Amino acid sequence: MLIRPGHDAIHRLVRMALDEDAPWGDVTSQTLIAASMRVTAQLVAREPGVLSGEDVFIAAMSLTDPAISTRFVVHDAETFSEGTVLATIEGPAQAVLQAERVGLNFVQRMSGIATLTAQYVAAVAGTRARIVDTRKTTPGLRLVERYAVRCGGGHNHRYSLSDAVMVKDNHLAMLAADGVSNVTEALQSMRARLSHTTHVEVEVDRPEQIEAVLAGGADTILLDNFSTAQLASAVAQIAGRALVEASGGITLARVHEVAETGVDIISVGALTHSVRSLDLGLDIVPQ
Amino acid sequence: MLIRPGHDAIHRLVRMALDEDAPWGDVTSQTLIAASMRVTAQLVAREPGVLSGEDVFIAAMSLTDPAISTRFVVHDAETFSEGTVLATIEGPAQAVLQAERVGLNFVQRMSGIATLTAQYVAAVAGTRARIVDTRKTTPGLRLVERYAVRCGGGHNHRYSLSDAVMVKDNHLAMLAADGVSNVTEALQSMRARLSHTTHVEVEVDRPEQIEAVLAGGADTILLDNFSTAQLASAVAQIAGRALVEASGGITLARVHEVAETGVDIISVGALTHSVRSLDLGLDIVPQ
Amino acid sequence: MLIRPGHDAIHRLVRMALDEDAPWGDVTSQTLIAASMRVTAQLVAREPGVLSGEDVFIAAMSLTDPAISTRFVVHDAETFSEGTVLATIEGPAQAVLQAERVGLNFVQRMSGIATLTAQYVAAVAGTRARIVDTRKTTPGLRLVERYAVRCGGGHNHRYSLSDAVMVKDNHLAMLAADGVSNVTEALQSMRARLSHTTHVEVEVDRPEQIEAVLAGGADTILLDNFSTAQLASAVAQIAGRALVEASGGITLARVHEVAETGVDIISVGALTHSVRSLDLGLDIVPQ
Amino acid sequence: MLIRPGHDAIHRLVRMALDEDAPWGDVTSQTLIAASMRVTAQLVAREPGVLSGEDVFIAAMSLTDPAISTRFVVHDAETFSEGTVLATIEGPAQAVLQAERVGLNFVQRMSGIATLTAQYVAAVAGTRARIVDTRKTTPGLRLVERYAVRCGGGHNHRYSLSDAVMVKDNHLAMLAADGVSNVTEALQSMRARLSHTTHVEVEVDRPEQIEAVLAGGADTILLDNFSTAQLASAVAQIAGRALVEASGGITLARVHEVAETGVDIISVGALTHSVRSLDLGLDIVPQ
Amino acid sequence: MLIRPGHDAIHRLVRMALDEDAPWGDVTSQTLIAASMRVTAQLVAREPGVLSGEDVFIAAMSLTDPAISTRFVVHDAETFSEGTVLATIEGPAQAVLQAERVGLNFVQRMSGIATLTAQYVAAVAGTRARIVDTRKTTPGLRLVERYAVRCGGGHNHRYSLSDAVMVKDNHLAMLAADGVSNVTEALQSMRARLSHTTHVEVEVDRPEQIEAVLAGGADTILLDNFSTAQLASAVAQIAGRALVEASGGITLARVHEVAETGVDIISVGALTHSVRSLDLGLDIVPQ
Amino acid sequence: MLIRPGHDAIHRLVRMALDEDAPWGDVTSQTLIAASMRVTAQLVAREPGVLSGEDVFIAAMSLTDPAISTRFVVHDAETFSEGTVLATIEGPAQAVLQAERVGLNFVQRMSGIATLTAQYVAAVAGTRARIVDTRKTTPGLRLVERYAVRCGGGHNHRYSLSDAVMVKDNHLAMLAADGVSNVTEALQSMRARLSHTTHVEVEVDRPEQIEAVLAGGADTILLDNFSTAQLASAVAQIAGRALVEASGGITLARVHEVAETGVDIISVGALTHSVRSLDLGLDIVPQ
Repeated sequence: MLIRPGHDAIHRLVRMALDEDAPWGDVTSQTLIAASMRVTAQLVAREPGVLSGEDVFIAAMSLTDPAISTRFVVHDAETFSEGTVLATIEGPAQAVLQAERVGLNFVQRMSGIATLTAQYVAAVAGTRARIVDTRKTTPGLRLVERYAVRCGGGHNHRYSLSDAVMVKDNHLAMLAADGVSNVTEALQSMRARLSHTTHVEVEVDRPEQIEAVLAGGADTILLDNFSTAQLASAVAQIAGRALVEASGGITLARVHEVAETGVDIISVGALTHSVRSLDLGLDIVPQ
Repeated sequence: MLIRPGHDAIHRLVRMALDEDAPWGDVTSQTLIAASMRVTAQLVAREPGVLSGEDVFIAAMSLTDPAISTRFVVHDAETFSEGTVLATIEGPAQAVLQAERVGLNFVQRMSGIATLTAQYVAAVAGTRARIVDTRKTTPGLRLVERYAVRCGGGHNHRYSLSDAVMVKDNHLAMLAADGVSNVTEALQSMRARLSHTTHVEVEVDRPEQIEAVLAGGADTILLDNFSTAQLASAVAQIAGRALVEASGGITLARVHEVAETGVDIISVGALTHSVRSLDLGLDIVPQ
Repeated sequence: MLIRPGHDAIHRLVRMALDEDAPWGDVTSQTLIAASMRVTAQLVAREPGVLSGEDVFIAAMSLTDPAISTRFVVHDAETFSEGTVLATIEGPAQAVLQAERVGLNFVQRMSGIATLTAQYVAAVAGTRARIVDTRKTTPGLRLVERYAVRCGGGHNHRYSLSDAVMVKDNHLAMLAADGVSNVTEALQSMRARLSHTTHVEVEVDRPEQIEAVLAGGADTILLDNFSTAQLASAVAQIAGRALVEASGGITLARVHEVAETGVDIISVGALTHSVRSLDLGLDIVPQ
Repeated sequence: MLIRPGHDAIHRLVRMALDEDAPWGDVTSQTLIAASMRVTAQLVAREPGVLSGEDVFIAAMSLTDPAISTRFVVHDAETFSEGTVLATIEGPAQAVLQAERVGLNFVQRMSGIATLTAQYVAAVAGTRARIVDTRKTTPGLRLVERYAVRCGGGHNHRYSLSDAVMVKDNHLAMLAADGVSNVTEALQSMRARLSHTTHVEVEVDRPEQIEAVLAGGADTILLDNFSTAQLASAVAQIAGRALVEASGGITLARVHEVAETGVDIISVGALTHSVRSLDLGLDIVPQ
Repeated sequence: MLIRPGHDAIHRLVRMALDEDAPWGDVTSQTLIAASMRVTAQLVAREPGVLSGEDVFIAAMSLTDPAISTRFVVHDAETFSEGTVLATIEGPAQAVLQAERVGLNFVQRMSGIATLTAQYVAAVAGTRARIVDTRKTTPGLRLVERYAVRCGGGHNHRYSLSDAVMVKDNHLAMLAADGVSNVTEALQSMRARLSHTTHVEVEVDRPEQIEAVLAGGADTILLDNFSTAQLASAVAQIAGRALVEASGGITLARVHEVAETGVDIISVGALTHSVRSLDLGLDIVPQ
Repeated sequence: MLIRPGHDAIHRLVRMALDEDAPWGDVTSQTLIAASMRVTAQLVAREPGVLSGEDVFIAAMSLTDPAISTRFVVHDAETFSEGTVLATIEGPAQAVLQAERVGLNFVQRMSGIATLTAQYVAAVAGTRARIVDTRKTTPGLRLVERYAVRCGGGHNHRYSLSDAVMVKDNHLAMLAADGVSNVTEALQSMRARLSHTTHVEVEVDRPEQIEAVLAGGADTILLDNFSTAQLASAVAQIAGRALVEASGGITLARVHEVAETGVDIISVGALTHSVRSLDLGLDIVPQ
């Protein structure tokens, strides 16, 4: 039960990428390879990982030429080992070679995100914590990057500025600059203007801020750059009155320790802001 | 004399990103901060690097609200140290806070690319080699990622499949499958179909392929995954009859050694396919 | 502290409408009125109401001709009486006459929504209930119709299928058809897949369904087509364990009675699905 | 012989609406309902009316998921009674539930327009008058709203400012302000600049204006806010020298009386500017 | 009183052309000319003609760089002699050189159309005939090509298939194939389905068809490929009962003779389907 | 091995053209011809030529109505004589008649370009010269116009300002104005900033400029408006050190003489800037 982006949204993204990569044709394939040649190729994993991008890769092929057929044998959210054949592609050679790079650019990046996410998720196994992403996504690719996080077993944070509240340090600084000293009242007043479906999360930098924020009705409290000890203490203090999110300086090495403090959510910007593409390649199958 | 993307192309990218990040408004700023509040903020470097993304950041601010003014004191392609104030932003607080993430997502990513590129460029200083990028860019962002490489002192490879030829192993495999054994003739025949402005580059995996490719009239020979010794030997063999590009497994640690072999071009996919966003932040300036 | 749609989103909508209404010019104004003529006009209320659409109206004028200046003296969310001059427009006569209909089509529709919303809001004054809209908006205009509801003092329900959960009768029917008899467990399982910021609302048709839904962790329970007595009883039963929304058959005549039952939210599809445009007109000011 | 909007235009509208309603998926269906579930549903009339929107509804389903099949048994422009099954939908349950609201939003609105139009058309049966719409359509939806009027048996007025002339009171006021006192000459001069295919219609507020306008060569004279007696008198005066259109204050109650005066055209802004969506619903068919 | 395309439509066209001509920058100007250089240039006529494209040329400059200022001294629809300076351009040298080709491509083509049109218009001076264009325009450029015809003193025919009826030989062939032998009744029946603002034009190939078409209520009769004598005879026969259009084989050499027959309209496909760009150039002004 | 534009790019162009030509339907076909009528039609050559536009014509038909089938018997780049049936179209009569003009507008224009190109190509047969196009294409149609040149046997010059360098007289004038007197150094310095795949072409007006340009490393030298004797002399002087392009004042009458001088490339702006549409028509096949 994976929430998948819609067909149309994926096609729009892929069309844009294909147009960017071959605005008026592929001068190599179309002048070197006979138009009648057909090819069978395999998408092969050159390192282990978690797949994400099946539909996008298929679209890169079929939007380049509807005569290409692509069949995935590993599916999104599934793990694979080095050397695994992930998919088989069959069709006109010119078109397969033309579509290769765009298809790979998407699926390598998305699988890189899914694989990294899965490592974080594995590291917190056995705790109550879930791994979530942030808004530090690549401009224009949030749709597929968030999906890749889900493929890796992670959860999504709010999708955009429009669908949930996150009161951050800069917001509180502005309130203070405006002479608003009572954060509790400010939060209550804000809540009255919001949709009843809007989740309110508030970031705190120091333990002393927690009670005012709870009194303001926050649904989630984000503890920013808290030490592990501070996190444990804050979890105890909040005691279920709100969800607790840890953020800031979360590395794979430290994440288990953070999860052990009892926080509900651990957000990791690196899932999408510093992605290493997974090494996948397209191999021609000798006939 | 930096080739910059056009205003309209930048605005189109930024509009898409703003729309993605706030489809119908920022429910936090617009319900918490008074519409009349103004703010002064600074874009601050939390680590040293090379700037790229000035125009894009400015557009993120001014397209969110034309009343925001942004002034950069460090400019694209310039280096900066940790703690440097890169730009000052002044305008309506709601809008500045709304635009912050989109502006940062672009400039952090682009500066990450520029900074990494500059490290590679520095590593080959004193040699004839230039550092170039590849088509392994983020779908939809090639325009700004290629620009970021230029900001870092790197050069661009072909922009797309339409503007230069690159014959790769898969193309040669297809030729062989089609019964074409004479690569030289195939290349000559291809050349006759191309624009006279189209550069022809051919990838070889083994030294034995070089002479046939030269005879076919290649402008550049790409030596894929050659050892350093093999590279040096191939440079000697080619002896200026074509440009020589080294590719595959180029790390920062190894790049100087590769450059010392006398190759003309070293292409590094990692410049864009595995980007770490540079740590830049937006700080509110107390009034 | 009204959440306003962004400039760019408004401009996109208005451009589309202007293009629809004058694909290649206004054959009347441009062949009858001298290009040099200037005009002063007033946007006048022909009936009382609540304003919504100030920015959109201004955009219709200025995107038709940047030489038109428009100044609103009544602002969005403010009430006005019949005969009130809402805005003054000054500029080239050809362009003002060309832009008139598009400007009016938006502002009349949006003010119609704001005015109707304000009547519902007034009717529940003194109760805890808030008036909210639904997804029964005009395709393509959700952005401005939701804003118009806010101008009228109403609140927004979830914006789209992506930002909050609403489990409706058809969903429950599908679960039953799938052999899922334990709704509580199904809801808990669904919650585990959702973002922690996603609000979960569940619709019930009968009082007997309430406890299972509460046990499933619903944040809001929607009571669909409940009689006033049933609503009151359900509010007592739920007793603050979730928010309570009343929906279905809510008329202006009945809404106060519904609000008196203690429900938190009353959703009214008619706010946007059956809009009467408010009667506003553009009058030329004799010079 | 109904003029239908093109496939591509309909798909563009529906894609925009689907994207608006589910930018990155349906968090309810896709986390609650098994992806393998299939459903049969019926589009049912909860009140009598005239259908409009068949192609648009089908597109909402098939663009959400090509695996959904939709078969209409009542067709556009046909009348139906309460309880009629209009269409049967079969396909993946997640997708049908996701597409439901967008499909309904279109077909309910369009059928509301068609049904109201049909009431006006019925009321003038037996007279020479035809019922026509105006440019008071919803921004962006003129294409389908005009089609809905045709489905209801009405006729369309000019589509946009570009395809026919309508000289209104504000135009005449501008001419006067420009010192042009001879309306006849102004109209003749305008005609010389227009395409020979451009129909010229002129609005008059007072009977005294009619002769000058006829002399100017108007194809249609619009009598704005004339009483029934004034209309009859004007029809007699014009005596076939131009088509006669009645406009302003046309209600269902009064329209027959207006038609009896012998006018050729009765334009009704309310057909599109104040639409009540027809009550249609989607019912799951128990298996 | 020239009907001009809207600002937004022109900008959309010019943006598309600029993007086509410089997707990621101008590699010549931006690597050869210092970014700080400014230039003054003149748009000069290398042959006499009629100007069209002022706004489009200005947009090509200012959308490339808002810092370019362009001032036309000859205006659209005005004639000029060889050697005339039409406009002066001042701004950053890189940007002016980048925008040059796109600006010229538009204004040369549009002025070519205007100039040819003016020749036809001059040739029929003193007769009642007007010169009109056809739908044989360049895909995507109808907006500006039709405007260019107006600049040349010509008139426009219907803009598209949606705004006026033209019954051609193929339509009549289809009617016949459908067993419809009474063209008069078919035309009357068609008229009943059309908007009252829709002009009906019918093409005839033979004089014998004229009476049936007149009886069907045609507003204009198009005489296709009639000899001059046949035209004169048909004008006499029609005798003002409909407008008369001559079409087919209209050359500059023959057009006066055709006009002398008394036809109202002469349509010339060559105005837009076979355009010779006017020779205009951009000269750098030595400083 | 013809480089063909991608499916998606062609569909985008055709959709735009169809929308331009029938924004809300074809009021003639859809009110006159029964919706159930089917038609067989033929695309017939009314003069001899070379075909270009097969895919575009098919798209015009199938995007209007997927029920139309179109089969070409002559293919792109093939020659045909007057009277040849190029394609057979079968489908709903309303749709075929609606799509006719858009299909013809594309294929007539493209075949006009291909046919003219083929005449130039034939005129230089037996010489080393190739015929190439320029950037003087119709805004928005470069994709298909460049393809049409290829269909005619011509070659393409650089596609845009982004993919190759062309230093023209205005660039050299700017350098001079900037005090740069050493063109050789300026070119070498420019080369250092360019991609290694970027071809550098430099235009010279006088023989004296040639040596400096060669020393600057130009790949191609464009001899602008040289007499035939000057061309021959320059070819001898350059002696293979760069490709030689002749440009300016190249007519069909003179092109063979130019080719005989030994130039490599002859560029002809008229191929695309002054196109005469080829006379092709759609004939209904009597059943």
